[in-house]
Amino acid sequence: MIKINKVVKELDPYVPGRSVDDIAKTYGLEPENIIKLGSNENPMGPSPKAVEALKKNLKLIHQYPESNLETLKGEIAEYSQVSPSNVIIGGDGADEIIDVLGKTFTEPGDEFIVPIPGYMYYEFMLKIQGAVPVYAKWDVPSNTLDVNSVLDTITPKTKLIFLCTPNNPTGGLIPRPDLIKIIENTDALVVVDEAYIEFSDHRNVDLLEKYENVFILRTFSKVLGLAGMRIGYGLSNPTVIEYMHRVKPVFSLTKLSEVAASATLNDEEYIKKSTELSLKSRELLYTEMSKFNELTVYESASNYILVDVRKTGFTAKELTQKLMEKGVIVRDCTSFKGIDEYWIRVSVGTMEEDERFIKILGKLIN
Amino acid sequence: MIKINKVVKELDPYVPGRSVDDIAKTYGLEPENIIKLGSNENPMGPSPKAVEALKKNLKLIHQYPESNLETLKGEIAEYSQVSPSNVIIGGDGADEIIDVLGKTFTEPGDEFIVPIPGYMYYEFMLKIQGAVPVYAKWDVPSNTLDVNSVLDTITPKTKLIFLCTPNNPTGGLIPRPDLIKIIENTDALVVVDEAYIEFSDHRNVDLLEKYENVFILRTFSKVLGLAGMRIGYGLSNPTVIEYMHRVKPVFSLTKLSEVAASATLNDEEYIKKSTELSLKSRELLYTEMSKFNELTVYESASNYILVDVRKTGFTAKELTQKLMEKGVIVRDCTSFKGIDEYWIRVSVGTMEEDERFIKILGKLIN
Repeated sequence: MIKINKVVKELDPYVPGRSVDDIAKTYGLEPENIIKLGSNENPMGPSPKAVEALKKNLKLIHQYPESNLETLKGEIAEYSQVSPSNVIIGGDGADEIIDVLGKTFTEPGDEFIVPIPGYMYYEFMLKIQGAVPVYAKWDVPSNTLDVNSVLDTITPKTKLIFLCTPNNPTGGLIPRPDLIKIIENTDALVVVDEAYIEFSDHRNVDLLEKYENVFILRTFSKVLGLAGMRIGYGLSNPTVIEYMHRVKPVFSLTKLSEVAASATLNDEEYIKKSTELSLKSRELLYTEMSKFNELTVYESASNYILVDVRKTGFTAKELTQKLMEKGVIVRDCTSFKGIDEYWIRVSVGTMEEDERFIKILGKLIN
Repeated sequence: MIKINKVVKELDPYVPGRSVDDIAKTYGLEPENIIKLGSNENPMGPSPKAVEALKKNLKLIHQYPESNLETLKGEIAEYSQVSPSNVIIGGDGADEIIDVLGKTFTEPGDEFIVPIPGYMYYEFMLKIQGAVPVYAKWDVPSNTLDVNSVLDTITPKTKLIFLCTPNNPTGGLIPRPDLIKIIENTDALVVVDEAYIEFSDHRNVDLLEKYENVFILRTFSKVLGLAGMRIGYGLSNPTVIEYMHRVKPVFSLTKLSEVAASATLNDEEYIKKSTELSLKSRELLYTEMSKFNELTVYESASNYILVDVRKTGFTAKELTQKLMEKGVIVRDCTSFKGIDEYWIRVSVGTMEEDERFIKILGKLIN
């Protein structure tokens, strides 16, 4: 019998997500009427300039992508205010960068720290590699990182510390002094996940100048509106970047993804408008959801809002199911470690989608 | 100081490939006049139906791809004459499947067998994971696998055996009885890499019915003309496929890649024509290159031809450099293990490209 890697043997079996088409069919809905507030996507759609650029490049998809990506690297460097030698680009979004971080900096048995509740994908990618997750604490009531819970779990085996700010799924930010305290108290690489940073007024990229153990993780999937194209990037000192390039898959960014990324970065108006729309939508969702006594709504610096639904009498699973039947997809947070079965995460939509959602929600819980 | 994984520390530093634009600039050429015979791409370009389908789907790229890919899985199953439960789809082409194979079936210190000269990417992906390459032999003069060199290197630590047929870069096929002999003499998973199988009259997918330790690796990058979209797939028994799904990145196939793959599989006329063109081009290249006394040209069952150039007086590096100056890119095989510095690999082009290439080559070596 073929032998399976022992870590893989103990992983949970794979359960595929449900597609919009599948949901539409099951509940007799039109796919285009379904409101997707579950995946923190950009409600504005992609940059029109990206769509135009793609149209012009469709005939070259039989050729391999460039492996060096120098032009895009330069554009990302400019957008992020660093040098091209500080940049690594990932196909499969930031998720590929997480895989490469694990491969570059951990060996089996090494530890990485993740505050919970937090983004679960770090653990998914790194456990497979034999690295061991050690949990720190995100304090949900105050929506801030429990800094001591991180400092207390650092050991000589700690190789990576993942700090997501704004934190997914809670939406809270990590104050600068807290970030610095952790960075200064470890030799491990501190991965500051800024997937959602553009929705806040924080930026931490300047920490790269002072500290060599900082890595900034970013994505094109949120404010830049390209979740379907799978583009991520990381910023760090040139030594870290060089080692990671030894490991990174050579052709993982599709040719069209490169084209779309480049066109979007050059569409300043889109970036501005798409940020504004998300902030307006967040404001509306926060205000309207806060009016329901049955909900405890958390302030967010991101493009989603965490909601405690226990007073509705429904679990998150029950409520998301009921919303789905009415054509609204929100995220049931039960699979996030560190919170119980009564939390949902609602992503920003267009103002029209938000209003429809609030009406549907009101009917269900009032 | 941050600690680097010890395998990664010993890897060669990353050297980016040169882009067409870069080559054009360096030698004062027009990018559209450069003949790309270096990457085994499809000279016909992509399926027109794929291009049309992409145009219709550009506005949805802000949404995450589906994670289940049930429709595409069904279409691949039909194309390959297996069931959907036999199929796993990879973003980043077959390269991602190789990474997932390593993660699923090897632990650090485990061995995998690769005949050389052969595709170098198996080693690139798996060494990073701590697995150890053990080299078997592809016999170049007879252009066949030395079966005993594989059987002799199997140990209890062997977890994967990579057999590429037609073999890259030599173009020779592995006869069925040889494949079966290896499969029957090991518990390791035998990965039959059929990236180029459509250019031959061989198929090995029926081996899945009889043997549980067979894995067929395929790609959309060659006869299906979608190298830039990074789509690969693997076929095996449902148990192997289920374990691999636990490991596979969830969203690595871009939304547009899914659309293009599906449209291409439904374009039977394109697949037929693109196969025919490649075979015609291979015939022309083989015949014409064989006329040069300075070249030893190997018969190929694939869309590229291996050529021994030592009698030209040039190394492969020198000759590919001279061709590049004239606007032709062919593959210098020096970086392939198991052959010396006198080999190039020439991919099929359009008939016009082939004729231009033969003229340019003649002037350089005659």
